[in-house]
Amino acid sequence: MISRYTSPEFGALWSSSARYETWLKVELAACEAMESAQLVPAGTARSLREKELSLDPVRIEEIERTVKHDVIAFLTHVEDLAGPPARWLHRGMTSSDVLDTSFALLLVKAADLLEHRLEALCTALARRAGEHRHTPMIGRSHGIAAEPVTFGVVLAGHLAEMKRCKGRLRAAREEIAVGKIAGAVGTYAHLDPSIEEAALAALGLRPETVATQIVPRDRHAVFFSTLAVIAAGVERLATNVRHWQRTEVGEAEERFTTGQKGSSAMPHKRNPILSENLCGLARLVRAAVVPALENVVLWHERDISHSSVERAIAPDATATLGFMLERATSIVDGLVVYPEAMRRNLDDVGELYFSEGVMLALVGAGLPRQRAYELVQRAAMRALQGDGGFKELLAADPEVTRHLTPDALAHCFDLERALAHADAIVDRALRD
Amino acid sequence: MISRYTSPEFGALWSSSARYETWLKVELAACEAMESAQLVPAGTARSLREKELSLDPVRIEEIERTVKHDVIAFLTHVEDLAGPPARWLHRGMTSSDVLDTSFALLLVKAADLLEHRLEALCTALARRAGEHRHTPMIGRSHGIAAEPVTFGVVLAGHLAEMKRCKGRLRAAREEIAVGKIAGAVGTYAHLDPSIEEAALAALGLRPETVATQIVPRDRHAVFFSTLAVIAAGVERLATNVRHWQRTEVGEAEERFTTGQKGSSAMPHKRNPILSENLCGLARLVRAAVVPALENVVLWHERDISHSSVERAIAPDATATLGFMLERATSIVDGLVVYPEAMRRNLDDVGELYFSEGVMLALVGAGLPRQRAYELVQRAAMRALQGDGGFKELLAADPEVTRHLTPDALAHCFDLERALAHADAIVDRALRD
Amino acid sequence: MISRYTSPEFGALWSSSARYETWLKVELAACEAMESAQLVPAGTARSLREKELSLDPVRIEEIERTVKHDVIAFLTHVEDLAGPPARWLHRGMTSSDVLDTSFALLLVKAADLLEHRLEALCTALARRAGEHRHTPMIGRSHGIAAEPVTFGVVLAGHLAEMKRCKGRLRAAREEIAVGKIAGAVGTYAHLDPSIEEAALAALGLRPETVATQIVPRDRHAVFFSTLAVIAAGVERLATNVRHWQRTEVGEAEERFTTGQKGSSAMPHKRNPILSENLCGLARLVRAAVVPALENVVLWHERDISHSSVERAIAPDATATLGFMLERATSIVDGLVVYPEAMRRNLDDVGELYFSEGVMLALVGAGLPRQRAYELVQRAAMRALQGDGGFKELLAADPEVTRHLTPDALAHCFDLERALAHADAIVDRALRD
Amino acid sequence: MISRYTSPEFGALWSSSARYETWLKVELAACEAMESAQLVPAGTARSLREKELSLDPVRIEEIERTVKHDVIAFLTHVEDLAGPPARWLHRGMTSSDVLDTSFALLLVKAADLLEHRLEALCTALARRAGEHRHTPMIGRSHGIAAEPVTFGVVLAGHLAEMKRCKGRLRAAREEIAVGKIAGAVGTYAHLDPSIEEAALAALGLRPETVATQIVPRDRHAVFFSTLAVIAAGVERLATNVRHWQRTEVGEAEERFTTGQKGSSAMPHKRNPILSENLCGLARLVRAAVVPALENVVLWHERDISHSSVERAIAPDATATLGFMLERATSIVDGLVVYPEAMRRNLDDVGELYFSEGVMLALVGAGLPRQRAYELVQRAAMRALQGDGGFKELLAADPEVTRHLTPDALAHCFDLERALAHADAIVDRALRD
Repeated sequence: MISRYTSPEFGALWSSSARYETWLKVELAACEAMESAQLVPAGTARSLREKELSLDPVRIEEIERTVKHDVIAFLTHVEDLAGPPARWLHRGMTSSDVLDTSFALLLVKAADLLEHRLEALCTALARRAGEHRHTPMIGRSHGIAAEPVTFGVVLAGHLAEMKRCKGRLRAAREEIAVGKIAGAVGTYAHLDPSIEEAALAALGLRPETVATQIVPRDRHAVFFSTLAVIAAGVERLATNVRHWQRTEVGEAEERFTTGQKGSSAMPHKRNPILSENLCGLARLVRAAVVPALENVVLWHERDISHSSVERAIAPDATATLGFMLERATSIVDGLVVYPEAMRRNLDDVGELYFSEGVMLALVGAGLPRQRAYELVQRAAMRALQGDGGFKELLAADPEVTRHLTPDALAHCFDLERALAHADAIVDRALRD
Repeated sequence: MISRYTSPEFGALWSSSARYETWLKVELAACEAMESAQLVPAGTARSLREKELSLDPVRIEEIERTVKHDVIAFLTHVEDLAGPPARWLHRGMTSSDVLDTSFALLLVKAADLLEHRLEALCTALARRAGEHRHTPMIGRSHGIAAEPVTFGVVLAGHLAEMKRCKGRLRAAREEIAVGKIAGAVGTYAHLDPSIEEAALAALGLRPETVATQIVPRDRHAVFFSTLAVIAAGVERLATNVRHWQRTEVGEAEERFTTGQKGSSAMPHKRNPILSENLCGLARLVRAAVVPALENVVLWHERDISHSSVERAIAPDATATLGFMLERATSIVDGLVVYPEAMRRNLDDVGELYFSEGVMLALVGAGLPRQRAYELVQRAAMRALQGDGGFKELLAADPEVTRHLTPDALAHCFDLERALAHADAIVDRALRD
Repeated sequence: MISRYTSPEFGALWSSSARYETWLKVELAACEAMESAQLVPAGTARSLREKELSLDPVRIEEIERTVKHDVIAFLTHVEDLAGPPARWLHRGMTSSDVLDTSFALLLVKAADLLEHRLEALCTALARRAGEHRHTPMIGRSHGIAAEPVTFGVVLAGHLAEMKRCKGRLRAAREEIAVGKIAGAVGTYAHLDPSIEEAALAALGLRPETVATQIVPRDRHAVFFSTLAVIAAGVERLATNVRHWQRTEVGEAEERFTTGQKGSSAMPHKRNPILSENLCGLARLVRAAVVPALENVVLWHERDISHSSVERAIAPDATATLGFMLERATSIVDGLVVYPEAMRRNLDDVGELYFSEGVMLALVGAGLPRQRAYELVQRAAMRALQGDGGFKELLAADPEVTRHLTPDALAHCFDLERALAHADAIVDRALRD
Repeated sequence: MISRYTSPEFGALWSSSARYETWLKVELAACEAMESAQLVPAGTARSLREKELSLDPVRIEEIERTVKHDVIAFLTHVEDLAGPPARWLHRGMTSSDVLDTSFALLLVKAADLLEHRLEALCTALARRAGEHRHTPMIGRSHGIAAEPVTFGVVLAGHLAEMKRCKGRLRAAREEIAVGKIAGAVGTYAHLDPSIEEAALAALGLRPETVATQIVPRDRHAVFFSTLAVIAAGVERLATNVRHWQRTEVGEAEERFTTGQKGSSAMPHKRNPILSENLCGLARLVRAAVVPALENVVLWHERDISHSSVERAIAPDATATLGFMLERATSIVDGLVVYPEAMRRNLDDVGELYFSEGVMLALVGAGLPRQRAYELVQRAAMRALQGDGGFKELLAADPEVTRHLTPDALAHCFDLERALAHADAIVDRALRD
């Protein structure tokens, strides 16, 4: 995690303290389940809870340097702090029972933090989409002016994508809301499945259908892939902001705060650096996917190669995506929109965007499609070469006027008609 | 697609013929919807269907070389074949209305073919898991003998993973079962949304909430990620087969067919080449994920950079995964299992795998966990160095016997007890 | 390989025929080396060469379906065609001696084809860079107008990158110009190292320092990484073309051929589809890198998991990159450049790009840097808001005029001075 | 950077302090070059050096939060500390002149630290390869016993690979030993190229041929790809250690330190966790390649999307690889080798590994290759089924004895002969 791209909640989530506290939480939940099963003296967990142990990550890591085993180091530390009752912890359990169940709790927490942020982004997009539902702009395919659209429709497209992402995030959360207390090779050799069931239920998790030593990593691969899909959606939005803010386009720009300097050399510049930053961060989130997929293939009942990978990608990918969602929300919320520039760029196309309507009218009037296409393309090309206005050139073409009355032609050049469904589209995104 | 790794159904699915036929199917569905809306003369689609046009991919590609536009080439060809009524096709539509809707149909078909194969693999795994539910083998973590497991439990783990994959595949199919007939920039400028709704319903698809010129590519990114997760699951299974077949392990091997030669130089060899091949193919399916994620970020209402990527990864990733699933099914079905070798490897560990049970019994008898660990580790290390049997060394240790009676010690060395939950685990995987 | 993106030379290179002919070439080279060592009757290779065997890929693959081993199938076919002398082929060799040495020959050939194309691209870039060395345009950072540059300098930047790529490609060619005839586990158990040395020398290859059963795959990982770096360079160029061709920028565009249709719906459009296509293809070449890296980690003296990967990525990545280089060359050669549009976009910035010069002059005249920055930024911001020309606003600011005479200020607004080093830069790229 | 996987030298290299100190170093080198060119008062740099400024990263980052520009924050801080002469710093330069030149210095330093560690690994591999040059073991392809090899030859293979990596690392170092002081768009608008040349020479760097605002990122893509190739080589070595340490193989194992605990549940276990860890870390280094390649494609004269990526991957990938090389060296140095286990596994194959020698002898004696193969395979298969010793079965086959005398057959079963070239191979790796 790079502190610059980590918000405090994610920093806290992935701290050593939080990790060890989560381990303790899992050990205590398991302990309580064992108390009910009379494997452990009743009241053990309660008595430990009442001690309000203050775990010391530094001390645990010192012990680990000797024993070279993290869970044993942790248990030793707990026993040092809490004395004899701690001996009952971890009974019949394997390290991975604690580690993987804890990891599930942390990832679920991360998913919840992300969902929150995704919702905030959706709220911002919904607000701006509604605000600009009737703000016309030129739609572009291939970076080339195509037909008119509204800025609200464009934002509604991003909103709909982010709403899809919310559904995916929830599904991914379900994928990893799974723990295991099934022992060294998943056979419940020393603890009955009922212990697992009770302990996980108390923690809000489900048991793994068939665990190995660990929860299989296909679940985590799904989780990290989902983060990358969301990041790509943010990257698409950020890329569009960068385009809108281009000098020659100038249709919208990131809010420029007082005191901010765009360039050490060029004082006049206002650069879309937040959006560019999001594009870079998306590459980082994406980079977690392949390692997560490579992690699936562990040998036999598990090897530990996945562990170092997860130490990196779990905090990095979740915190980075969290930061991206916050930053994207703030960009959308603060985006300075220039409807007049949108209008100017639209007008600069010289109504060429009505070409398809004209072509359809010609076909409707009986011209073969190919011929209609040629007529319209010829006028369009001449208009582009500066031979006159597109509408005027068409009105002066006898083959066109043979099929279309002046009124019928005028009907083709109606912006409002072209955007008649904008409201319906925006509403669809808001509602869904 | 490499023909060696492509089964006929996928070859057919991704052929030029199938592509153009699917385009025609979409154009006709749209045409029918327009007929109902009285935009096109009633009966047009039916009359075209009755002609049973035989589309010629070679001819279409010839035309494309001139017009440099695939859909225009296709429409020209259809008009050449079918004459005037064909002029009504594609009315008010943009190329991507056809292309993306068709692509959705092809991907849905691919998903169905894959689901079929995934089911076959589950069936094979279920059969073998049931067959070997009581076949004991040593479980291994880190490649090192751990505690006993049964071969059926191991296969049940793969079965449970593949069943999860089936759920994911279905969700991915829903993601891409979405078309669009919304025009050049998704605004329904020339066709009412009701046309899209009717046409897509007839094709078994849903309309995109907010389309750009195309269906947004986050859906496809989810689809290809899902394929990679499934491929990783197959790779895990294949890796385990490779381990089981190792000379020194010898617990199971791929069926060796008559006439097959293992090596041009070494006639005695039986190599797990099918499983190794699956590991390689998984890398190829995985390689589709990042390009699919990079495809999400198209400029404005779309650019066409995703197209060449999809021309490669859509056939390649689906056909390769299809082949992988078929091959994995055949490996599982034909796997030659050697229960006696499993038993021998288990016995070779010298009952060390009962160490945890002993430790737990010692703790249960009142010894501090750390001390119990040390006692058991000491006996285990001496057993590994050949100083005697593990059980005998424990029985000879006064500190052990002070806490455990001979009977209590014997109770710790009971294989059947260690595997008591195997049935329940296998059943869980079969049922879920 | 997708035929659409494969030029004939790469199609031929990776055909079955070429593969089997290369195998024969390697077998014959080895045979000759063995003849010199008197392990094989003198004249064997010559007699086989004289037969001018016409290998039949279809027949070889039929045999393979029975024996499930490609090299044995090939040798069987050769013996069928050539009779008894063929029995001497492959003596003491292992399949991988043939396969890997052949693979090296094919990759070397691919590298040569690529180098050719890279040179053609450099030639095109050099020509256009020279042509436009004095064509001023606005330089852009963050998509925002920065300071002036010339179009020739920009192209020179791409030229310099492609020249670096040529050096990298040559180094990559050296990496994989390595064969092995060292037997089943690289120990020369049945053939002296001198046979390998002679045979490889005749084929233009070097022996592997320490082979396993195969040539280690780190070499190939370097090769495919290099292709991806080159592809990324082409993608950068293509992305710039897409920007230049944007409707609002309009500074350069791909040549539009007669008969070409930009859009089925919008006849007026001229889209940078070739450049967009290059961006997609770069993703595909990039996607070969991770599988190639994953291929490095083979078990012990080798497993065969790399083979299926290479069947896909070797043809795909080389042919795709070859196609990309051809297409990029044709785009550069045919690029329609609009110097007047470049000039217009430059002028539209309103001389703000001289801001740094003004700031430096103010600092040179004794103003603290921070203060100079503020003065210039203030004028720039006012100019952007339409309060007047940037130069005029500065000339009217008493704090500016206190430090700069009118002449000194005018000196800061000299385009020619700003571009004085363009020639030197372009020449550096042409020369290097 | 994860502290667990970061050694102190890399921690220091990528600290904020080191970054700002490197910036100052670059500013001072540029200042001195400007002094020589009389653009800046003589002695400025010297006077600043003499102040021995103690830069405060915390303070710089505070300023950055206001001005939102890192270099401006840094310069403000320097001016705060050093007073008026600092005003001369950065004259005519753009932020990227400092940032990219500094980044080059840091990466060069990282490359030097890595080369050091790579040399240490080579030394360890060379020592152990020499030590075990005559230790026979069974070579394995596909995980299946093939022909004999020596452990020294196997290590020599890893040595040769690591030596190749050293060459690649040096080439990668050259790629990124390039700075730029060429201004906002690389045109030297405010500073003559001679300033750049002098300043970079003083820093040990070369000028970029054609810079944009920055040094083009193809250089960095090569650098990170190279790290991944090295990591893959370490992963191959680590994977082999994991195989050797498997319970059923037992040929070598990681040194187990006193006090170390293999498992919290199973006290007897000695797991190859360091090697497994290296496999995971290799995935992380590999994950830097695609983002580095995606970074190449910056818009126009640059955008800043690469920056966040490099903030993560530059420290992470270099530090992780540094750690991997240290750990791999320590594994190789401490590897506990069991020659007797190697011998036992070799013997367990029952001399089947001599099958190719027998086949060659039969062919040499006039039998067609196919027939020889069948004879040997038949005996091998029977031996595997327990029908007798391989040599004995051959000696009892009349078709074999018709072609081979008992002496000729015995000659085929000579281990020393099979390993005769081991010395030459090991020496080749040591020498190269």
